[in-house]
Amino acid sequence: MTHHPSISESGLGSWHQAPAIVGATIDAIDTPALIIELDALERNLAEVHAVIQTAGIAVRAHAKAHKCPDIALRQMHAGASGICVQKASEAEPFIEVGIKNILITNQVVGARKVERVARLAAHAHMGLCVDNIVQVHQIGVAARRHGVAIDVYIEIDVGHRRCGTSSPETAVELAQAIATYSPALVFAGLQAYHGSAQHMRAPADRALAIAAACSRVKEMIAALNKAGFSVDNVTGGGTGTYALEAESGVYTEVQPGSYVLMDNDYPKNTLDEDVPELKNTLYALCTVISVCPTHAVLDGGLKSFAVDSGLPRIVVPGWTVTSLSDEHTTIVSEPGTPPLKVGDKVKLIPGHCDPTVNLHDWLIAVRNGKVEELWPVSARGAMF
Amino acid sequence: MTHHPSISESGLGSWHQAPAIVGATIDAIDTPALIIELDALERNLAEVHAVIQTAGIAVRAHAKAHKCPDIALRQMHAGASGICVQKASEAEPFIEVGIKNILITNQVVGARKVERVARLAAHAHMGLCVDNIVQVHQIGVAARRHGVAIDVYIEIDVGHRRCGTSSPETAVELAQAIATYSPALVFAGLQAYHGSAQHMRAPADRALAIAAACSRVKEMIAALNKAGFSVDNVTGGGTGTYALEAESGVYTEVQPGSYVLMDNDYPKNTLDEDVPELKNTLYALCTVISVCPTHAVLDGGLKSFAVDSGLPRIVVPGWTVTSLSDEHTTIVSEPGTPPLKVGDKVKLIPGHCDPTVNLHDWLIAVRNGKVEELWPVSARGAMF
Repeated sequence: MTHHPSISESGLGSWHQAPAIVGATIDAIDTPALIIELDALERNLAEVHAVIQTAGIAVRAHAKAHKCPDIALRQMHAGASGICVQKASEAEPFIEVGIKNILITNQVVGARKVERVARLAAHAHMGLCVDNIVQVHQIGVAARRHGVAIDVYIEIDVGHRRCGTSSPETAVELAQAIATYSPALVFAGLQAYHGSAQHMRAPADRALAIAAACSRVKEMIAALNKAGFSVDNVTGGGTGTYALEAESGVYTEVQPGSYVLMDNDYPKNTLDEDVPELKNTLYALCTVISVCPTHAVLDGGLKSFAVDSGLPRIVVPGWTVTSLSDEHTTIVSEPGTPPLKVGDKVKLIPGHCDPTVNLHDWLIAVRNGKVEELWPVSARGAMF
Repeated sequence: MTHHPSISESGLGSWHQAPAIVGATIDAIDTPALIIELDALERNLAEVHAVIQTAGIAVRAHAKAHKCPDIALRQMHAGASGICVQKASEAEPFIEVGIKNILITNQVVGARKVERVARLAAHAHMGLCVDNIVQVHQIGVAARRHGVAIDVYIEIDVGHRRCGTSSPETAVELAQAIATYSPALVFAGLQAYHGSAQHMRAPADRALAIAAACSRVKEMIAALNKAGFSVDNVTGGGTGTYALEAESGVYTEVQPGSYVLMDNDYPKNTLDEDVPELKNTLYALCTVISVCPTHAVLDGGLKSFAVDSGLPRIVVPGWTVTSLSDEHTTIVSEPGTPPLKVGDKVKLIPGHCDPTVNLHDWLIAVRNGKVEELWPVSARGAMF
């Protein structure tokens, strides 16, 4: 009887392993893969933190953009006071590497979810947002049962029109409800994120939007002060507006996320002259798998790139992305462009960094054309 | 010194566990989660296989739609001759559950990838597609080195204008190149998939497209026959056109994938009267996390739903999805619609099933409102 090796004996079943090895050249990376240009990441990180820290306020880097503890540790090393996440489960891999100050910039609703936050609060200084009394009671009961203290931020709508209350009366009621759970719940301040302002192209439009946000924040603070509540922290802001919140005199902390990666959307913003231009750090590497007279085809598609902010942009001169399907990207060239051949590797800039990273298990950190580190996207799929 | 429990001791770090338990009601499922209505899945499966098998040809179910071995085993049990995958690594979890006949309906380019296919061929009857001589040499060398035989299908462009040759001369050259690697490579037939025809809304348009595809196939077969090659298999087709390929007299095998799940796009096709109407099987379950005077917000967004074929559709009467961000879906209601409250759970139909499933680690199989089985999406992220 012949011995047939099992799948695991033969080294198969292992595609979750990193698609590269340290020290190899970029051409040796299996594709489709996401690569991070370390020089650009380090420059973006230093420049954005300098702007915010020079203004005298805190950077709480948003980890939803990268979901990667290796990047979060670099952000902490560069002076971040803590990180933000968007889901309770997303906090876990960051706590595991020792990051102890985490704000969930979102409502957390449901028994299993508040239970998760209360358990995490035994390991890290945890905060979350509320905009409804139901949330306060759910998290208050869980925090009491676990004997922990959780920071609660009242989320206010400063123009994004997603979550958050726009009523000062509601904000006061929320603060009063939070107080009834003291010391298990601590009223920590206001979450005041203007998401849609991040992608306004003109500096004047962004400045107007953040000025209006600051007015809303002040109105809320006045109502809360009048009701006897001090507001110690105002947090918000992102890669598109961080310099405005930093200089506002109203925000105490900003939450940039995309700045360490960038994508094909953010560079479309026109910048104020005193704001540093950030470089694209995140690229997708693909292989040409088919060449036809009219077009060529790459080996990554909708399962490797998020397209909610547009198609990825190929960085090979003369070539343009025309469409994506599940595992294919079709590209065409201008007349006179040198042809690509089957097996060529090409770089693309994803349309939107956050949901693109969430499709991958690994980020390949490269410098000078060589793989320097392999970073797991540990919070990939942490949607609970 | 106080003992602080580690993350793992306290049961944290575990969000990859299924967000439900068998026997629970749907309301007890943690969100956002994908649920599968088992009755609908079983009906779709039986009806599509009946149409194809009645026509006397084979069903090779496409597993890229679901990436889930539990579903593939049901497809095999319902008479599928094998499965298709779109990537070499995607085959592995299906081989691990004993599925032994797998066609990669794609070009496989690169040393690490052809090595993977050659290793898999020691465990399963493997096939792949080629449209370029470079691919034939890469896979031929790997198959010889591993002492395995691999089926090779020549992919032809039958109107989709993605991969595939449209030149009979190229097809003959490819068959000749494949023959030089005999017995390591076996020329198995033609891959002739008309992807864009799947989503043509009018039956007449789909019929014309597949009739044209059949003409292209016959032209290729004639050229190959003339050069001394017999063409034993012609494979292609999908959920939008499977009945046309089944009745064509040209195709020997069809490759439907989405039929077991369906999404918000396929029901927009008008059906021929003799083609069974398929039910939506796949739903996303979300929780209402915020309620404002003008809108409400759900706890799943771009990291839970693919939006390349449009926004998800909420199935609560009077409510409409207006926008998604990373972890939020905003919904609005018509005047007079009963309000939703924080904590309510709602169902949505994703715009495009394939890339949506690829965002999730689990499918929750439900029947009569109860969780019946928990299915891992084992090939999630298998993009290599």
